[in-house]
Amino acid sequence: MIAEIIAVGTELLMGQIANTNAQFIAQHLTELGIDHYVQTVIGDNPHRLAKVTEQAEQRADVIIYSGGLGPTQDDLTKVTIANHLNEELIYDEVGLAKIKQNFVVQKREMVESNLKMGLVFENGQVFENTTGQALGTAITKDKKTYILLPGPPHEMKPMFTNSVRPFLRASLQENIHLKSAYVQTFGIGESDLTTRLDDIITKQNNPTIASYFSGAGVTLRVTARSNDRDEVDSLITNMISEIKSRVGTYIYGIGDNYTLSHAVVDYLKKTKQTISFAESLTGGMAGSEIVSIEGSSEVFHGSIVAYDAVAKSTLLNVSQDILESKGMVSQACAKEMAEGARQQFNSDIAISFTGVAGPDKMENKEVGTVFVAIARKGREVEVLPLNLSGSREKIRRYSINSAFQALIV
Amino acid sequence: MIAEIIAVGTELLMGQIANTNAQFIAQHLTELGIDHYVQTVIGDNPHRLAKVTEQAEQRADVIIYSGGLGPTQDDLTKVTIANHLNEELIYDEVGLAKIKQNFVVQKREMVESNLKMGLVFENGQVFENTTGQALGTAITKDKKTYILLPGPPHEMKPMFTNSVRPFLRASLQENIHLKSAYVQTFGIGESDLTTRLDDIITKQNNPTIASYFSGAGVTLRVTARSNDRDEVDSLITNMISEIKSRVGTYIYGIGDNYTLSHAVVDYLKKTKQTISFAESLTGGMAGSEIVSIEGSSEVFHGSIVAYDAVAKSTLLNVSQDILESKGMVSQACAKEMAEGARQQFNSDIAISFTGVAGPDKMENKEVGTVFVAIARKGREVEVLPLNLSGSREKIRRYSINSAFQALIV
Repeated sequence: MIAEIIAVGTELLMGQIANTNAQFIAQHLTELGIDHYVQTVIGDNPHRLAKVTEQAEQRADVIIYSGGLGPTQDDLTKVTIANHLNEELIYDEVGLAKIKQNFVVQKREMVESNLKMGLVFENGQVFENTTGQALGTAITKDKKTYILLPGPPHEMKPMFTNSVRPFLRASLQENIHLKSAYVQTFGIGESDLTTRLDDIITKQNNPTIASYFSGAGVTLRVTARSNDRDEVDSLITNMISEIKSRVGTYIYGIGDNYTLSHAVVDYLKKTKQTISFAESLTGGMAGSEIVSIEGSSEVFHGSIVAYDAVAKSTLLNVSQDILESKGMVSQACAKEMAEGARQQFNSDIAISFTGVAGPDKMENKEVGTVFVAIARKGREVEVLPLNLSGSREKIRRYSINSAFQALIV
Repeated sequence: MIAEIIAVGTELLMGQIANTNAQFIAQHLTELGIDHYVQTVIGDNPHRLAKVTEQAEQRADVIIYSGGLGPTQDDLTKVTIANHLNEELIYDEVGLAKIKQNFVVQKREMVESNLKMGLVFENGQVFENTTGQALGTAITKDKKTYILLPGPPHEMKPMFTNSVRPFLRASLQENIHLKSAYVQTFGIGESDLTTRLDDIITKQNNPTIASYFSGAGVTLRVTARSNDRDEVDSLITNMISEIKSRVGTYIYGIGDNYTLSHAVVDYLKKTKQTISFAESLTGGMAGSEIVSIEGSSEVFHGSIVAYDAVAKSTLLNVSQDILESKGMVSQACAKEMAEGARQQFNSDIAISFTGVAGPDKMENKEVGTVFVAIARKGREVEVLPLNLSGSREKIRRYSINSAFQALIV
């Protein structure tokens, strides 16, 4: 089966937004094993929409549209494709009732044009919109399938996951189980990682392995397929074991979109420990990353962001002697900062960050000089000296990720 | 003049990356006033590349390609387009020398295939690659112009800005000056904003006004053009005055990518004041945002991230009485937190953040209940009560942006 994606929206042509919908749909097509060779973006123009649809029909079995289902006069995707196919649109009663109800709840008057968000193909499929108003719809005619989805990513994505993905799997007409696992790594480059796994990446076709950057580090997606559900699981489990045996020291967790911050919170919950931070370089980012994870209040006590020397001495008890002889960016200062935070917050663990984010040198130390210290109750403080390069943002993020990785792996 | 963008790269079709190159190029085309109706993405496949090129030739005068200029056997854009046009490719001597030199510096052996990164159209234009190896190139034939650019965004973007943009402006064959200014707003929705400016947005065509979301709030891009440079400036100045007279209370600054954090640091420098934070809800994010701005060490002393009640009392001197009678999420607690931070850090200003980020209620207060307090030396502490909705992340960010806006506008 070959699919194509057509995104409709003048905001894409103006460069106001990136086409993240196409990326999202493409990821799913890849996982489902559906071939996909062309993506197109056009504006809100019915003539061009009909034209690129004709071209797509020459190449693909399934055409997936996003955008142009809203209430404004520019939103013309449904009526254009219906005219092109000579098919009828009807109002879906459930969807229409929901649209009307929404205006009642919001105490706004509904204008006529809002009704068209409730249109679907008479001879087609309805996709519920759980996060918005415009219904999705699909129709199959002359062996081609046309899937029409809303443009706003927060509407399109849940609709795709909940409705379109099962619909596509059903139309693959294979009783195949498909499953992906995501191996999250940090501290190894993509080319180094894939070189170490080269034989299994290039020779294996079940499971397949794909690598891509994802926030902190490189993610490996392991995808297995079989008509036996248990076999899928064991194929994945075995492959993850193989990957762990080769690059285990870089793996901090398994799971889609599983971040290092998430892994730290899980580690602390599991080991029943609490944490605090002493931040200079990072300005509060370490604490903020932890707080972004739901349930972090169980394990996080707080941070002291001591950006100047005075704050380091008064709030973290860093000795004047060390500040004068070694400076704020030093192994000794990092150690006392971590120990100071651990005592102030009475936590099991405290991590400190001090360094030069740039653009200028500090205390005659080069940009990218960073010291991270990890203090744990009843143990010697551990120091991680780092030599980093890149933007301020990159240096700060990399320092935090290095500390988190060192804490849990 | 009509342009089209063709992005070449299997990683786009696999969904590994979003097509941010197309967004970047589209923004420039919009600014240059070049029409642009279709974008296409295809994989590393010469047959399909030739085919979509033929289709683009039916619609556009300029075709801009990104991707497929690298050293691997998959990189086929130059040779495919040269064959399609029946044009010759030659090695650019300067570019080739740089490629060879790079391998010497890196002490790596150069394989033959790397040479092709130095190929350009014999009868065309060369675009230097200041951040990578593969040269860009362009050729005009039968009144159509073909512009070939590298795929990695950190190579494509500087090449576009430095070389392709001037090249396109020259081929517009107009002696027109073009300039954009960016008006940054926060605290007003896009539809509300554009409604208040509706008459000037729809009726004016010089300057033009475009609105789009950008991080915190809505940006208005004001673009003027004229063959008189002074007229361009006065058109923009007058339009900004008009916008300020209508929605000035929502405007925090003027400048491309000018963030609220940047505006806060500029405000503090200008008024020679220092700042510190007392963070609960935000976990350190406010300080981290300020530290992300170069030169923030002049104005930022630090933060106390007091996530639990104990830390609020011991580090910020919030009274037990208030913690017990009003709770951590209260106007009174926010006030004492801000005053506590201001005293601990001896800063001119301190801002505190306390609230319920969710997913669960706290102290029987609803998710989204937030109190922000601003303490200034010698003045009554000001409290901003907020009622927010959305994800944890959204509630935290919106609280910080509201505080920053209140501080400076």
